[in-house]
Parts: sequence; structure tokens; C-alpha cells
Amino acid sequence: MAAALDHPKRTIWRDGPESVVIIDQTQLPHRFELLRLTTVEAAIEAIITMRVRGAPLIGVTAAYAMALATNAAPGDEAIIQASDAIAKSRPTAVNLSWAVNRCLAHLLPIPVAERLAAAWALAESIADEDVAQSETLGAHGVALIRSAAKRAGGRRVNILTHCNAGWLAAVELGTATAPIYLAHRAGIDLHVYVDETRPRNQGASLTAWELGLNGVPHTVIPDNTGGHLMQHGLVDMVIVGTDRTTATGDVCNKIGTYLKALAAFDNSIPFYVAAPSSSIDFALRDGVREIPIEERSHDEVTTMTGLTAAGAIESIRIVPEGSPVANYGFDVTPARLVTGLITERGVIAATESALAAAFPDRVPG
Amino acid sequence: MAAALDHPKRTIWRDGPESVVIIDQTQLPHRFELLRLTTVEAAIEAIITMRVRGAPLIGVTAAYAMALATNAAPGDEAIIQASDAIAKSRPTAVNLSWAVNRCLAHLLPIPVAERLAAAWALAESIADEDVAQSETLGAHGVALIRSAAKRAGGRRVNILTHCNAGWLAAVELGTATAPIYLAHRAGIDLHVYVDETRPRNQGASLTAWELGLNGVPHTVIPDNTGGHLMQHGLVDMVIVGTDRTTATGDVCNKIGTYLKALAAFDNSIPFYVAAPSSSIDFALRDGVREIPIEERSHDEVTTMTGLTAAGAIESIRIVPEGSPVANYGFDVTPARLVTGLITERGVIAATESALAAAFPDRVPG
Repeated sequence: MAAALDHPKRTIWRDGPESVVIIDQTQLPHRFELLRLTTVEAAIEAIITMRVRGAPLIGVTAAYAMALATNAAPGDEAIIQASDAIAKSRPTAVNLSWAVNRCLAHLLPIPVAERLAAAWALAESIADEDVAQSETLGAHGVALIRSAAKRAGGRRVNILTHCNAGWLAAVELGTATAPIYLAHRAGIDLHVYVDETRPRNQGASLTAWELGLNGVPHTVIPDNTGGHLMQHGLVDMVIVGTDRTTATGDVCNKIGTYLKALAAFDNSIPFYVAAPSSSIDFALRDGVREIPIEERSHDEVTTMTGLTAAGAIESIRIVPEGSPVANYGFDVTPARLVTGLITERGVIAATESALAAAFPDRVPG
Repeated sequence: MAAALDHPKRTIWRDGPESVVIIDQTQLPHRFELLRLTTVEAAIEAIITMRVRGAPLIGVTAAYAMALATNAAPGDEAIIQASDAIAKSRPTAVNLSWAVNRCLAHLLPIPVAERLAAAWALAESIADEDVAQSETLGAHGVALIRSAAKRAGGRRVNILTHCNAGWLAAVELGTATAPIYLAHRAGIDLHVYVDETRPRNQGASLTAWELGLNGVPHTVIPDNTGGHLMQHGLVDMVIVGTDRTTATGDVCNKIGTYLKALAAFDNSIPFYVAAPSSSIDFALRDGVREIPIEERSHDEVTTMTGLTAAGAIESIRIVPEGSPVANYGFDVTPARLVTGLITERGVIAATESALAAAFPDRVPG
């Protein structure tokens, strides 16, 4: 286990008057490279090519992109045009259009000469809000880990996670990882089983890397392994993220989450979902029937990218030519398998009544 | 989908008076290479390096290796020494010691001059027995697929499988694939979802390749995908193999099988296990508690092997340096999740009483 390395506190930040720095996540885990963005075009390219990814981080990047756009040309037409281009860079990311619309609504009414300062200030404030949300959500989650530690009676607490709902997906702390980082800092003895998360391997590439960077003990496992570990008492709790949560508590998250929820349920292991309220869609009631599941590029299944013995990053083919493949990005875990939703307003039962009681301001008429 | 190619009917066969031909499975799916074995040393090397793998095929290869040994030196001391070396080549494979012991018991009592002919004849007969078993087991399984086709009402039947309990793991037809091949030949319209089966990827590398070779429609999916497909009615039945089956019907198979069994159960989809009686251990009663699970090399998790754009077979690293990994080879699916065991004596409920009734000759005491 590598000791905690010196690394930036945030995954994105303003650096100097006209630029933003990001971590180029396409190079992880093999190369840690920072990338300076000075134009809105560069920011859009970073979102499209997934140098930045994860719903919260995409939203914050969009806000900084609006500041870069304003820096280039602060007039109405120019910033509206830029906002269109940013919003289209990843059409399915809700946080993207939310951030862009918020920036536009804030900037258009104020004088052109004041827009640049206002755009930077708003981007900084959107980033700060994300950090504050991770901190609040994380604090609620720490209580769950502390309880698990008590039940474990002094033994190390084992937490399983799937995909990357981590620091790298947000600005600081992440969502599913926020309770883990805060518990680790508080001195709770814990260890994380990281699903590699095929086909894009965000667990092995990103979650394992960032846990290592922060000195959190962890073990990477193939996605097939969690059930066996749970049968043998090697997992005390599961914490995953969510891309979309229904009003009834169904959770749409990275493909394979449902299988881990079934195994946790079968072995009476608590299954928690870190669900910032921004992920909850109060218009949806049946996750399996109502949430359309994105089918992604076949290349993600047929090829794998990694580091060659010679130190180059290369893609190799792992499926025979001529064999068709399918690549569904997400699945839905029914609320009945979810022990609780960790939100910024506390840990809430995955039921319609509990969600409505916690978020009365969000429930439609 | 490639049309059925011209390929050998068996995965291993005698070719000429002093040699055996195998498929070099380490080159699949990217290269189809036959390998001629003329010495017992070459046969042992093929078993150790997994050029041949799969319990039935390993047993048959061991029998042919005994013929090659007898060809070199038919005396008692020589064939006993050879049998020791063969038996040690993969110590955990039950079929290996079974085949070697059977050959030795057959050869030692007969005159040295007659041993070579007898050794070849016995190897051929062990191979033929394996084929006959696959055919019988397969025929029982076809009835299940036929029922699924009826329930599907004319629509294509979708079968999900995990790992490779296929033609390549046996001599002909395989175990889990035997019903599939026979149903396909009988004109039943079917399609197979093939789990890629991390970490060794036997599904993507071997099952997809052999289904393609035989013209069976199929789709390769990441191991995370099966639950989503089952929730959406895209899987009609699951058929997997087993490495070890308890007297009570628990099934020890490739890691991840348990997760698919949970998903099948949750969605009321029949979950069948192709279980030749040789896989049943009547001394075991609790699979999860009693079956030791092999922990395998970490390289299988940290690296992936495939074909580069330049056409070379290369291994790449996919887990960050410094991140520990775990690699459990198998898991146990409790009998309560198994709809039926497809054996050479018919489809049997995964219960102690049903197994005892079907195999009274095997129950101890």
C-alpha cells in the first residue's frame, strides 16, 4: 500500500486569471497528468473525451467553461452560443445543462463589463457547493461506518464499492467515497473492496488509484467476486453511488450494481447508496420500467486499454472478431434491496414516504 | 455472425501411430492452432500451461499421455513414473488422477508387449465415453430448451451461460453447451448470452469463439450485465457447468456463477447446471462451508491479454501499481437457487433425496 501522496485537494480549480486546471482522467491510473484549460473549446473537448467525468465534476467543469467563454467574449450572443455547445458535449448528463442554465440565468441580466468576474465567482461557488454537499453527505455516512465498526468489535470494517462515485467524480471527497474518506481520516480502521467495474474499469482505474493516493487500504476484485466475499463474512457493508434515483427509492447506477445488491440482501449485509438529492427524480416511480438504459460503444467490451511492458498505453482486442457484443451502461436496483439512501439531509429509507418526508420541497404538486 | 467453419469434430485425437493432436487453447480466440504431441513430456507441458483445460478434456489428455509414455517405454517402472508426472501436472483436477489410475490399473497386469496397443485403445475408449456422456446429458438438456421455446411462443430462446463448460473443455459437445449444440442442430431458434468471465475471460475467449465456429448465434456481455437482461425479459434460461456438486445440490463453479443464480431466482428464470455425475461429491453436504476456494495468481486480475492493432498477442496492466488484488477462482451457488441439475441420468432436482434416488450406486454407506 502506497502512503498518501502529495496531490491537489480538488479535482478542478481556477489557476491564474484565465485558466482552469483538471486531472486528465483518461491517463489514469498509469499517468497522473494535470491539464490546463484556457478556452471553452478545450473544456468541451475535456468533457467529450471524458478527461473529466462523473456527474458532479461535469457540472462544475461546465460552470468553469462558461467563465472561459465569458473571458473570450462576454456578449449575449457569444455566451448563449457557448452555453449551447457546452450543454451538448454530453447530452445525457443532467448536471451539465443544470450548471449551464444556472450560469446563463445569472450572467445575462448583468452588465457585460461585470460578467467575467461574476462568471468566475459563480463557478467557484458551484464548486464550493459541491464540496459542501459531499461533506454533509459524508458525515451522515460516517455514522453508518462507525456502527459497522462497533458491530465488527474492533476488527477492520470491510466496505465493498462498485464503479467510481469518488473524489475523481466530484470536486472533493466524492459521494460513495465521502463517508469512506471521512471515516478513514477519523481513524476508523477500514478496508475497501473495489469492483474493477467492467467494461470501462472505473473501479480498477480510478477508485483504486484515488484510494491509494489517499492511503486508504483497498483490494481490487473482479466484478464476479463480491458474492463469494459476502457469503464468507468478508464484507460488512456496501456503499455505491447513483446516477438517478426514483421517488420510490429505486436506484439506477453502473451496470452490475443490482447483482451486488442481490448478494448483499441474500447475506443480510447493509446496502447503502450515496444519493445526493440532485440524483433524485421525483417524476419517476418505477426504475426498471421507466429509466431508459444507455447502450454504449461496443469497443468498451471488445477491447481493453492498459500499460504494456514497454510502458506504452495500448488497447488490445479481447473478444473474437465476428462475435457480437452488448454494452448496457447501467442497471436498476429495486428499492426493496436498498438498506438506505445517504443524502445531504441524512440517511433515508428507500421508500416513497421517507423520500417525500425528507424532500417536501422537491415533491411535485 | 460467422457461418460454421470447417473444424475438427473433436478437441483431441490420435493422429498416426505415435502422436496426438490438440487445439492450443492459449492462442484462442485470436489464433486457431493445432499442436502435435509425440511425447509424454509435451503432453504434460500442454496440461500445465493450459493448452488443454476443462476437467473432461484434462482427463482424456492424461489417458493419451499414458499412451505416449507407453510408446516410449512400456515397462512397469517407466509407466509408473510417467503416471506420477502426469498426475502432478494439475494437482486439483480430479479427472486427471482418475484417468491416470485407470490406465495404470489396466496396463500393469498385461504383458509388456501388448501394452502399447492397449494404452491407445483405452485412451480412445475414455475419449469415446466422454463423448457419449456429453450426448446423453445434452439430450436431457434439449428437452428443457424445447420447453423454453414453447413458452417463448415462436420467439428465439435466449440462454445465458458463464465461463466455458463447452466443446473446448471436453472432447465433443461439452457439458453446459451440449444441450445448446444439440438444440441448435435440431433447428430450435436460440441465442446465447456469453458472460466474458473475468478474470481469465474464458467466456469471451473460448465460449464465444466455439459458438461462432459452430454457427450458434451469441452475444458477449460483461459479467455485470446479466441481471439487467433478466430484469427485462431478455433471458429465458441459464445453463452453466459445475466443478464440484455436493450431495445436497450445492454447485461450485467459476466465480460469479452465484451472482447470476441470484438474479435468475429474483426474476423467476430457470437456472440449470450441467452436472455430469463425475462432478458430484457425495461426501460433501454444505458447499459454502466445506468446499475450499482456490486463490489464483494476481496477474490474472492485474493484467489482460489480447490482440494489439499490429496483430501481436500482448499483456497489458489494468490495475494501478501498488493496489492489492484478490483472485478467488470459484464460488458456491446454494441448491435453493438451482432449478435442476442436468446429468447423464436425466434432469434432477438439486436436493439430497433426488440426487440419492438418481445415483444410489454413488451414495456412501
